[in-house]
Amino acid sequence: MQLIPASVQRLIDELSRLPGVGPRTAERLTFHLVRSENDDPKRLGEALLELKQSLQHCKVCFNLADTETCAVCASPNRQDDVIAVVEEPLDVVAIEKTGLFHGLYHVLGGVISPIDGIGPDKLQIGSLLKRVESGEVKELILATNPSTEGEATAMFIKRALESKPITVTRLARGLPVGGDLEYADQITLGRALQGRQQF
Amino acid sequence: MQLIPASVQRLIDELSRLPGVGPRTAERLTFHLVRSENDDPKRLGEALLELKQSLQHCKVCFNLADTETCAVCASPNRQDDVIAVVEEPLDVVAIEKTGLFHGLYHVLGGVISPIDGIGPDKLQIGSLLKRVESGEVKELILATNPSTEGEATAMFIKRALESKPITVTRLARGLPVGGDLEYADQITLGRALQGRQQF
Repeated sequence: MQLIPASVQRLIDELSRLPGVGPRTAERLTFHLVRSENDDPKRLGEALLELKQSLQHCKVCFNLADTETCAVCASPNRQDDVIAVVEEPLDVVAIEKTGLFHGLYHVLGGVISPIDGIGPDKLQIGSLLKRVESGEVKELILATNPSTEGEATAMFIKRALESKPITVTRLARGLPVGGDLEYADQITLGRALQGRQQF
Repeated sequence: MQLIPASVQRLIDELSRLPGVGPRTAERLTFHLVRSENDDPKRLGEALLELKQSLQHCKVCFNLADTETCAVCASPNRQDDVIAVVEEPLDVVAIEKTGLFHGLYHVLGGVISPIDGIGPDKLQIGSLLKRVESGEVKELILATNPSTEGEATAMFIKRALESKPITVTRLARGLPVGGDLEYADQITLGRALQGRQQF
């Protein structure tokens, strides 16, 4: 017996495919949308269908954009001799929220991960090297995640730039603000100790 | 500066409106959909747009259906003298999953809640009374939630049926299976004590 109508089951199935959404959550979300009397489901549906239509990658930094050049690269107020190299567009959003970075970005589109078959050639590393070779860049901040793959990717880029006269930096590792020394894992605490600063 | 492209921001906003989805989760889901190379966003969007098109309420029990009569009501294998009265279509799914109920349902479409302006007339209570008056029903299981509103709604229906020669029951309250006596709240434990059964 098909207890749940086909259109409802279909939405449950599609929502279940999202990361972090299990079958129970998908059911609850679906029945919320079924119950909603306004046009929420329609608006969400249209937003999804239009998502990729105007979306493209910035031709300079490969961040998401709805124009040829993204808002950061197009801005005349950014310092163009510092580039923060990040994995994903969401990382750009995170760094922008700090309000402390005024340079440009370069979005790799992922990390080197041999297990997943992702080599340097599948990332925007070649285009990064070209930007550096253009000669205007003085500092490259390797802001990939502090994970094994993020470290490996940062290391790969650092080696590829060894002969270039630029400063290559990496984001500081240490205790998160508001964190508790007692609950910090030993590697983080070790890094915080090694990177201690004059007070 | 509009850092996030408009179509991406729009999807983040729409996803944030879902219950239990905060702005951070909405961001993560959106960027997951942006990254996906297959047509996941398109399929999810279409499922949303088609959700309510064929959807209707069963004319007998007011459960969700894509035909005039829902699958339960249309089945010849159900016991038609027992009706479980539930709040929402999802409750029908929950009871069906137990595999222990073979009767019919009646979906109220909510609970009596004066604070939210929901009186008995906004629920499928009149249609329930009519079903009972048709004379075939022997038992009514009031399976509304064990919440204040659920209790009040069950009480309202019980009173409206006082003169009718049918059995009105309510789902058992007690300790949840796998639960721990030590952590049970006092009301639940009290109910479990009152409802103790011969072993």
